[in-house]
Amino acid sequence: MSQQSGDDKPVTLINVFEIATADLEAFVAQWEKRAALMRAKPGFRSFHLYRALSSDARFQLINVAEWDTEEDLRAATSDDQFRASVQASSARFDVSAYPAVYRPEIAATV
Amino acid sequence: MSQQSGDDKPVTLINVFEIATADLEAFVAQWEKRAALMRAKPGFRSFHLYRALSSDARFQLINVAEWDTEEDLRAATSDDQFRASVQASSARFDVSAYPAVYRPEIAATV
Repeated sequence: MSQQSGDDKPVTLINVFEIATADLEAFVAQWEKRAALMRAKPGFRSFHLYRALSSDARFQLINVAEWDTEEDLRAATSDDQFRASVQASSARFDVSAYPAVYRPEIAATV
Repeated sequence: MSQQSGDDKPVTLINVFEIATADLEAFVAQWEKRAALMRAKPGFRSFHLYRALSSDARFQLINVAEWDTEEDLRAATSDDQFRASVQASSARFDVSAYPAVYRPEIAATV
């Protein structure tokens, strides 16, 4: 692990969900339980679960979550209870999730 | 326009990009010019263009931008120069963009 690799810098997990609108409310309720698990983990900074205003949007839900380091994020998502909950959601709901780790390339604020 | 519809509340535009990694650098350079246009518009609050750490991620770029209202966002993206730049990017690059308007459904910060 070197400074240059940026392993000690904050990362942003973004998870993009394709989900049937009929499943939306129940999925969010399960998701919220997982989020409570994650909030208690070392390195957690914040999350925002965004919901599309239009039911026509391809991605109805997008989670943007900040963690202190990629290592913290990996450790948190290795949790057995977390993984079991993800599997239960996949089995129950018509959902495709596309999680990946990001960093801001460009940013601006007024 | 009523209070209840939330038309006067902040919105988050999230644009999810599927893009060939070979096109990434040049696309970001064009995108940055469009972002400069947007920053000057009424109602602009902030943007973060996130880039995936892994080239295997399906969505290599995701823009998360906050606006004062949905009306401000619509007015900004109706700009002729903006639309011409979006079309030029679509013609030049192997890119699929999925923009939609969101609001946070659940959020937490340490």
